[in-house]
Amino acid sequence: MNHRPIITLLTDFGVADPYVGMMKGVIAGICSDANVIDISHDIPPEDVRTGAFFLERSFRYFPRGTVHIAVVDPGVGTSRAPLALRSEGHIFVGPDNGLLSFAAPRGRGVVLRSAPYLLPRRSHTFHGRDVFAPAAAHLARGVALEELGPAKRGFARLAWPKPRKTRRGYRAEVLSIDRFGNLITNFEPSHWDSLRRPEVHAGAFRSAVLSKSYRAARKGDLIVVFGGYGLLEIAARDASAAVKLGLARGAKVELVEAAG
Amino acid sequence: MNHRPIITLLTDFGVADPYVGMMKGVIAGICSDANVIDISHDIPPEDVRTGAFFLERSFRYFPRGTVHIAVVDPGVGTSRAPLALRSEGHIFVGPDNGLLSFAAPRGRGVVLRSAPYLLPRRSHTFHGRDVFAPAAAHLARGVALEELGPAKRGFARLAWPKPRKTRRGYRAEVLSIDRFGNLITNFEPSHWDSLRRPEVHAGAFRSAVLSKSYRAARKGDLIVVFGGYGLLEIAARDASAAVKLGLARGAKVELVEAAG
Amino acid sequence: MNHRPIITLLTDFGVADPYVGMMKGVIAGICSDANVIDISHDIPPEDVRTGAFFLERSFRYFPRGTVHIAVVDPGVGTSRAPLALRSEGHIFVGPDNGLLSFAAPRGRGVVLRSAPYLLPRRSHTFHGRDVFAPAAAHLARGVALEELGPAKRGFARLAWPKPRKTRRGYRAEVLSIDRFGNLITNFEPSHWDSLRRPEVHAGAFRSAVLSKSYRAARKGDLIVVFGGYGLLEIAARDASAAVKLGLARGAKVELVEAAG
Repeated sequence: MNHRPIITLLTDFGVADPYVGMMKGVIAGICSDANVIDISHDIPPEDVRTGAFFLERSFRYFPRGTVHIAVVDPGVGTSRAPLALRSEGHIFVGPDNGLLSFAAPRGRGVVLRSAPYLLPRRSHTFHGRDVFAPAAAHLARGVALEELGPAKRGFARLAWPKPRKTRRGYRAEVLSIDRFGNLITNFEPSHWDSLRRPEVHAGAFRSAVLSKSYRAARKGDLIVVFGGYGLLEIAARDASAAVKLGLARGAKVELVEAAG
Repeated sequence: MNHRPIITLLTDFGVADPYVGMMKGVIAGICSDANVIDISHDIPPEDVRTGAFFLERSFRYFPRGTVHIAVVDPGVGTSRAPLALRSEGHIFVGPDNGLLSFAAPRGRGVVLRSAPYLLPRRSHTFHGRDVFAPAAAHLARGVALEELGPAKRGFARLAWPKPRKTRRGYRAEVLSIDRFGNLITNFEPSHWDSLRRPEVHAGAFRSAVLSKSYRAARKGDLIVVFGGYGLLEIAARDASAAVKLGLARGAKVELVEAAG
Repeated sequence: MNHRPIITLLTDFGVADPYVGMMKGVIAGICSDANVIDISHDIPPEDVRTGAFFLERSFRYFPRGTVHIAVVDPGVGTSRAPLALRSEGHIFVGPDNGLLSFAAPRGRGVVLRSAPYLLPRRSHTFHGRDVFAPAAAHLARGVALEELGPAKRGFARLAWPKPRKTRRGYRAEVLSIDRFGNLITNFEPSHWDSLRRPEVHAGAFRSAVLSKSYRAARKGDLIVVFGGYGLLEIAARDASAAVKLGLARGAKVELVEAAG
């Protein structure tokens, strides 16, 4: 089988404006056989942390060798460096603002500075098109990472939102709310398993039952389930848990040892 | 010409969350030369009937041999079977909840149960990524349908929304409202042709004129036209017919023999 | 490297309905190795001018030889001709309503009339699928433009929105507002450079400072910058300039010689 190079895109550009199309045009001109796959373009504007979270949860579903472009870049055109990093056999391309740091926490890489691998006319406002897209396309067609610029150690990092230990268990938060209104927390299965009689508390909601599917409840009822992210979710059958509980991103969720 | 295998996607996942991207990553890892085409990811959440309608209206525009993944799957993780069906030279992959039944009413197929063709770690909540995407990608690269699991006869079916005969003609409904506010009904040309002096009734609207184009009216006026679905639509020139008539999906539309 | 043919799509169809998917199915059936790239499907319904603007700003980021399909086509099914034009080494396919005229102002082309290159069953309401998609796919696989129909001279044109000279400078307008709330005007760098002490006036906003990046201001403050379109934008740091200034598309913006 012919292995086409894969490039993924994750941005906060939306798809109504032609920005993403311009990036894909640049890529097509440099690496015409690249398979370009959108992860999301609807990251909330300038929300670097949600972008970092989506990228970390997604990249392992792509084959090794994939080049991932991520652009949530409020500091475009300032002194923050444009990067390419290698980690776990994947390559990550984006701004040095923490966006890549969940997916590639120990990545080693370079500053994108080598002119032959960037667009000749570069704006200060759209590095997605003028810097990251051409660099990624050259990487996808086989150019060595080291060719793209000088090595860099030490990158901007965001702290991965690990649940904190509390007296009775752990405190986490709602990291993301998906299209179905499911509340995605940062609890891993290991947190649930570490308690003898775990119970979830979120706003007015209490549950000690871990369900296997979204249907394990009566219509409208709330359930606790490990979802597609591999993380604990609070969901409502045929309804939005976020609406039912009135909880937003960042809301606290506790996992505690049940009393009695 | 090299014939790349084609895989289509139709889901209710939206494109803001990374779920569709994860599915495409899985596909790319199994069948790297697949041409993956989105039909829609904006099926109203858990609206199996609209998903079934879109799939039936769309699949014949793709070449024979196309593998169509459809995932509108409120029962994911329950006893409903994951299927692959063959019908009219196309292959359909999705849950056994009626979603495939408009496109493949007499399809023969299998239950997706053969582990080598599924992801090794399968969630109970995201079969789109863990079951349907890998199965479809293996089918696209040439694995025989029969390899994917045991044969199954008898599938969940939804009734295709056929107009009903009434005393004066037929009663249908608004199946879908598109981005332009056009009201798409389930009347086929044969219904119109079966009446001597057909007249459309929908809410306050009456018309005995079948237009050829959306422009066959003055600005804001309503018209009746056979649209891109091959079905009778009520449209408004440069405006939304849905807004003008205050009609929603499911609203009744009648086609009657004009009086006099 | 294998050079796959590239086809871009720009429509006002949205992506919730299956219309764009149907077009891609038709293309895949004719030119299976085409790389189909979306520029935008969220042109405001029937807004030919915004479609023309997006196409003109985007097409040069694609390699020569790219076939660009554009469909914002309120007159579909009327006497307006379906066109294919060649200009600057690119091919443009769409209705003769001015949509192509910013990108291909001096294009030479043909009326799409040759039956072998269109779908056999053509609706009067969906030329995107039945006329433009098959014609573009045949062009992408190498059919000569002249094969598709008779030559045509003289096309519908929209006037490119050039700023007008005023007593004190120039008057322009807000052409587009992007996802970030940036107000994109039709001022080019040449307008700015032609004044000795240029000052931007837009609603209550006045500025004589040209910034290099979106971060060149305090949080919430407004700036003037040349953005990704190569045009002067008014932006707000970490906020929407459109909301802050209460300005909409079409709002007047002036560039004047500062007093004193």
